[in-house]
Amino acid sequence: MLYTPPIARLVEELSKLPGVGQKTAQRLAFHLLKIPGEEARSLADAIIEARERVTFCSRCFNFAQGELCDYCMDSRRDPTLVCVVERPQDIVAVERTGEFRGLYHVLGGAISPIDGIGPEELKIRELLERVRKDGVREIIVATNPRVEGEATAIYLADLLKPLGVRATRIASGLPVGGDLEYADEVTLGRALKGRLDL
Amino acid sequence: MLYTPPIARLVEELSKLPGVGQKTAQRLAFHLLKIPGEEARSLADAIIEARERVTFCSRCFNFAQGELCDYCMDSRRDPTLVCVVERPQDIVAVERTGEFRGLYHVLGGAISPIDGIGPEELKIRELLERVRKDGVREIIVATNPRVEGEATAIYLADLLKPLGVRATRIASGLPVGGDLEYADEVTLGRALKGRLDL
Repeated sequence: MLYTPPIARLVEELSKLPGVGQKTAQRLAFHLLKIPGEEARSLADAIIEARERVTFCSRCFNFAQGELCDYCMDSRRDPTLVCVVERPQDIVAVERTGEFRGLYHVLGGAISPIDGIGPEELKIRELLERVRKDGVREIIVATNPRVEGEATAIYLADLLKPLGVRATRIASGLPVGGDLEYADEVTLGRALKGRLDL
Repeated sequence: MLYTPPIARLVEELSKLPGVGQKTAQRLAFHLLKIPGEEARSLADAIIEARERVTFCSRCFNFAQGELCDYCMDSRRDPTLVCVVERPQDIVAVERTGEFRGLYHVLGGAISPIDGIGPEELKIRELLERVRKDGVREIIVATNPRVEGEATAIYLADLLKPLGVRATRIASGLPVGGDLEYADEVTLGRALKGRLDL
């Protein structure tokens, strides 16, 4: 018995976090025991509060407080332009660019038969409903550029075209600051195909 | 505003943990929102429980539940052999070796004038009291082999010798599996000085 029971429990709970092994869990646990009690309590409260107060937006399925998320409630954003992402954290990444002023739609993942995720497990039906109801003119499919995300993008494009809505896909290519020498051939191939006029 | 307030608060609290930057804090926060509510709650409870139930051992200042820690309560351990460490987590490291069956004494740090830590900030007076009261025959000083830990070890040895107690220091040398080629000269010098007969 290396730890007294409450510490053992804390180490175990911390080690369940992604990317946190036994050593890191121990370091975090001893840190939480060392800092002032109210600081540790503050973290515990933040976890509880987030779980109690955070809901899903009824329109786009982003995290929200209440019925609609902050983006869906923002009247300055263009509701006819919708960016489709896999997860809520992908919205944070898109927002950081400062390049997008439309709304979002969180699918809740990507089509992946091997993981048992088919189209009916994702919020695709709800997306099509939005397109019909809200007069959406363009859907930017920003699923991850992996097999599952690509398959989802193609699946969505097939459903969206008959509805007369423009479906676009974020570009694949070399990351800014990247190096041709170290680029994999698929990415470089995409960069060539997706070349733009200067 | 990238996150809705309860998520922003959770990300901020998580980013205060050691070794957790903004990106990791975000990943952990979204993980805690994704897992079942009771699992997130379980982590919060473990933090609160640890802070409420964990005390300091009145004899050795290790973490404890109640008056004495698990080691001080264990009658099979030798109370005349005391290993002095800087922090409670150092006890875990010593215990993992399986080589020590005595008791411990946690100083709460090491002498470091630059950080304003003098002997009176550490549990040194309490250690000397234990030596007098409990008939301690050997003190193994297992402070970290850095400047502060070494200074603390020398300071302790000076205090302990007049009391007729044997004071020893854990060995410094090459780590097992290490390489002479990559050893720093101070460590290799110590390994030479501390050589043992074969």
